[in-house]
Parts: sequence; C-alpha cells; structure tokens
Amino acid sequence: MTQSKNTAKGTLYVVSAPSGAGKTSLLKAVLERMPDLKLSISHTTRQQRPGEVDGSDYHFVTVEAFKQMLDEGSFLEHAEVFGNYYGTSKIWLEQQLQQGHDVILEIDWQGARQVRKLMPECRSIFILPPSQQELLNRLTGRGQDSEEVIQSRMAAANQEITHYDEYDYLVINDEFEEASHQLASIFTARRLRLQSQKIRQAALINDLLG
Amino acid sequence: MTQSKNTAKGTLYVVSAPSGAGKTSLLKAVLERMPDLKLSISHTTRQQRPGEVDGSDYHFVTVEAFKQMLDEGSFLEHAEVFGNYYGTSKIWLEQQLQQGHDVILEIDWQGARQVRKLMPECRSIFILPPSQQELLNRLTGRGQDSEEVIQSRMAAANQEITHYDEYDYLVINDEFEEASHQLASIFTARRLRLQSQKIRQAALINDLLG
Ligand SMILES: Nc1nc2c(ncn2[C@@H]2O[C@H](COP(=O)(O)OP(=O)(O)OP(=O)(O)O)[C@@H](O)[C@H]2O)c(=O)[nH]1
Ligand SMILES: Nc1nc2c(ncn2[C@@H]2O[C@H](COP(=O)(O)OP(=O)(O)OP(=O)(O)O)[C@@H](O)[C@H]2O)c(=O)[nH]1
Repeated sequence: MTQSKNTAKGTLYVVSAPSGAGKTSLLKAVLERMPDLKLSISHTTRQQRPGEVDGSDYHFVTVEAFKQMLDEGSFLEHAEVFGNYYGTSKIWLEQQLQQGHDVILEIDWQGARQVRKLMPECRSIFILPPSQQELLNRLTGRGQDSEEVIQSRMAAANQEITHYDEYDYLVINDEFEEASHQLASIFTARRLRLQSQKIRQAALINDLLG
Repeated sequence: MTQSKNTAKGTLYVVSAPSGAGKTSLLKAVLERMPDLKLSISHTTRQQRPGEVDGSDYHFVTVEAFKQMLDEGSFLEHAEVFGNYYGTSKIWLEQQLQQGHDVILEIDWQGARQVRKLMPECRSIFILPPSQQELLNRLTGRGQDSEEVIQSRMAAANQEITHYDEYDYLVINDEFEEASHQLASIFTARRLRLQSQKIRQAALINDLLG
C-alpha cells in the first residue's frame, strides 16, 4: 500500500484514548457533521454488551474465528486488550482508502504502533481526559461495572495514557463541544492541503487558470 | 529566527489571494472566533481609501518613509503591487511569535516567497474564488473603481492566481461560512500537534501522568 501523490487516496487516521476519555462519543459527534468520514468496525472476541449491535459496534467473533482470520493474514493489526482480542481487517479498509475516503481506526496504542509502521503516512490522534479525577468520575459513572472492574480499567487507562506522546495530535476532552470541534478540524485541515485540493478541485482550478 | 521545539513559539501564517477572493472578510470572520490570532498590519505607500483607518488597516506612509525603513532593514519582506509599495515590519512580528502567538500575514505571492525562504517553518494558505465569473462579479460589485481599474485588477488577480500551487493549503471561498470554517480549521489543527500541546497542556499532562 504505497501512497501516490497523483491519486485521490484517502487519509488513514488512528484514534486512541484511555477508556473514559470519551473517544467513542467524540467520534460519533464528528461523524454526524462529516458523514463522508468512514469508521472502521473492528473484530473482537470480547462479549457483546447490552445495547451493542453486532456488525455496527464490532464484529463479535469467537476466539477460534479470530485466530483463523489471523492465520489467514486478514488483519492489518491486532492486539490483546483486557484479555480479549481486537483486530482491524484489511480488505474493507484498503478499498475505502483507494476510493479516496478518509478512514478512522479506533484502536489501542499497540495497534497504533503496528499501523504507523505499516502505513507511515497515517495520522494519529490521542484523546485525553482533563484530569485524573474526571477520568475516575467517568469510569465510575458508567455504572455498569463492579468496583474491581473499575479499578482495573483505571489502571489500564493510566497505562494507555503513558503512550500519548507517540501520536501526531493531542486533543483534550474537557468541554465536549470544543473537543469535537477540534477533532473535526484535524480532518478538515488535512483535506485542504494543496496536493489534496489539486485533485478535489481540479475542475475549478482549470476554470480559473483557463 | 530559528524555531526551537522546546519553547512555545507561535506559528507564522502567510495568506494570499487574488483581489476579489474575499481574503480580508474571511480573515475578519476567523479572527472574531479566534481572537488570540494576531494579524500583522503592513506598511504601504498606496493612498488611504475612504473608510480605511491608519494604523488599523495599514500603516500609510510616504514613499520616502518606506524607503528609509527599507534601508534600515526594518522589513521582513516587501513588494511592489499595483505600483505601490507594501512591506511587513519585523519587530512586532518577532515579538508576537516569541510570546507564543500565532501571526497572520496578509501579503501577495512575492512577499510569500520571501517569507517562506526566511522562515521555512511558516505555513502558507492561498484563497481562491469559485470561478472566473464570480471573480469578475466581485471585482465589479465593489463599485468604487472605474472600468479600466477593474480590467487591470482582473488581470492582476489572474496573475496572482497562477501562483496558487506554491502554497501549503488551498481554500475555496464559494460559500462564505464554510470557507471561514475551513480556514479556521487550519489554525486550530496546528495547535493540536503533539509538540504544541505538550507545552500548552503541560500542567494537565503532569496531573494525568503524576
Ligand atoms: N489494537 C486494536 N485495539 C482495538 C480495536 N478495537 C478496539 N480496540 C481498543 O480496545 C480497547 C477496549 O475497547 P472496548 O472493548 O470497546 O472497551 P471500552 O472500555 O468500551 O473502550 P472505550 O471505547 O475506550 O471506552 C479500546 O482501547 C479500543 O480502542 C482494534 O481493532 N485493534
Ligand atoms: N508583499 C506584501 N504584500 C502586501 C502587503 N500588504 C498587503 N499586500 C498585498 O497587496 C495587495 C493589494 O492590497 P490592497 O492595497 O489592500 O488592495 P485590495 O484590492 O484591497 O486587496 P485585497 O485585500 O486583496 O482585495 C494584496 O494582494 C495584498 O495581499 C505586505 O505587507 N507585503
């Protein structure tokens, strides 16, 4: 997958965050405003939660099915998180980028490292909560998990946070509206770069230079 | 003026456009939303127009005064446009950047070239009108100039347009709201880069990693 300057290839974005930073809600808000952004749906072996939709939140698969996909080389990247497997399947992703769509991967720092290595032209974004206290509030507020699970998620979140400086961009989710606006600006600004615009706006530029 | 990664130095932006692309109105709208952006006020030898304020739109000076500043090395860049001199004075600009402010220069392609050479870390943006017809409408609609002046501005505008591909970003001013939003996203996204955020958000990051 090499990036040619002359084709309208999309940009691949990697977005990571500790659990509780609000990554999923922020991306949802951005996707509503920018419906031409594509969000990749991961495969996972973790249990489906109440309210989650198979094929929409995740592709929920068995460990066996996951391992088979892995053996077949179907994943661009994969990782074990909280004892479950997660992976990004290649086919759909490559199609979308070839068709010129910008694609977002919502993955952890381990997956981000793999993607950066394979596709150095990707842009990576890390989302942080505004404080330890607020992180704790948000992880507790979810109300769906036991004290023990919360403690282990807090530890995992703090572990994830230590990787913030491997990313290209850093967004703080303090005020939701501002953070979603900032996140959107990263996607918007990149489309305005000369090389991108020369392709998107070829007809207009032709009219002006004609 | 070298850019150090460890100081909170501001970003220098160069914005150019053909007359009639709406550069000044777009920047005004962006500055209202982002009042911490600083717009450099140029020196010019051209005549003050009705409604223009000295020291706010431009510093209006005589040819003699301009030439003296030039001899004294006061300008970062300067150019002759429509038979008048225009220049960006250094002192204020350097202070603003040192203090961490992002600064915008609204200058022509000749000035942009000089600035890019002196400060390669600057980011440059070109604004285009949506069509030749719309450019003509806008240059005519101003109503303040003779047919001859309009013809010569149209020629000058088309001359300026040929330089669009020397810039980092291209914004099309078709729908005003969208264009000003796009322009703002360029400034916003750059502030979210890791190196920038590490400085701006040092206290927050400390709390989270503590
Ligand atoms: N490497 C990798 N990580 C993934 C993938 N899909 C999800 N993840 C990450 O796995 C972690 C756990 O995700 P979930 O099971 O949805 O748990 P969660 O607590 O709801 O996660 P948050 O969305 O972070 O709140 C998160 O950090 C996800 O970003 C993937 O395909 N690859
Ligand atoms: N190089 C350089 N160009 C400048 C400077 N200040 C203004 N200009 C450019 O000079 C040209 C003429 O500017 P104006 O005299 O304001 O004329 P105008 O028709 O109102 O210009 P627009 O704002 O483009 O509509 C524009 O392209 C400006 O961007 C400067 O300090 N240096």
